[in-house]
Amino acid sequence: MDLEAAKMIGAGLAAIGAGMAALGVGNVFGSFLESALRNPGAADGQQGRLFIGFAAAELLGLLAFVVAMIILFV
Amino acid sequence: MDLEAAKMIGAGLAAIGAGMAALGVGNVFGSFLESALRNPGAADGQQGRLFIGFAAAELLGLLAFVVAMIILFV
Amino acid sequence: MDLEAAKMIGAGLAAIGAGMAALGVGNVFGSFLESALRNPGAADGQQGRLFIGFAAAELLGLLAFVVAMIILFV
Repeated sequence: MDLEAAKMIGAGLAAIGAGMAALGVGNVFGSFLESALRNPGAADGQQGRLFIGFAAAELLGLLAFVVAMIILFV
Repeated sequence: MDLEAAKMIGAGLAAIGAGMAALGVGNVFGSFLESALRNPGAADGQQGRLFIGFAAAELLGLLAFVVAMIILFV
Repeated sequence: MDLEAAKMIGAGLAAIGAGMAALGVGNVFGSFLESALRNPGAADGQQGRLFIGFAAAELLGLLAFVVAMIILFV
């Protein structure tokens, strides 16, 4: 396989990683919303942790996207 | 493998990432709706967080689609 | 691998992405219906959010389908 050809396949595989991170982000927000609606009064107090969890999962997805860009263009 | 052939396979792999992000989006909305119907009065108060979570997961799916387009056309 | 052969494999991979998006859409509607049947009176009030969530997940699946069509015919 050529180097250029392998780059295309590698970037595609990295994009799967970005999609999988969306699963994690969805899980964080899904679980938060499910419970915030059960106990709305306490939801505001947990917002800081919600965004820490969201940012951690989103970061990993963006890293997968960065890997795809590095594979393609660096 | 040719470069052109690898582009086709790489874009296909990236499309899997877009599909996986839909799982995350579905999880956010699914959990929200499930609980909003249990406690409809509190649903409007959580709508801001619903859309933050939805946008974060959708973004990762769109990034995977962008990777597919870059692989095919750049 | 020939370019024509790789197109077939790439489009097949992209179709996996479309199928995965159906899991997300199914999650949105599944959770909604589960809870709407428990609390039917509140279901109409959540219909707007149901369709936003459904459209967001469906969009990502259609993007995967678009990638498959581009691979095959462009």
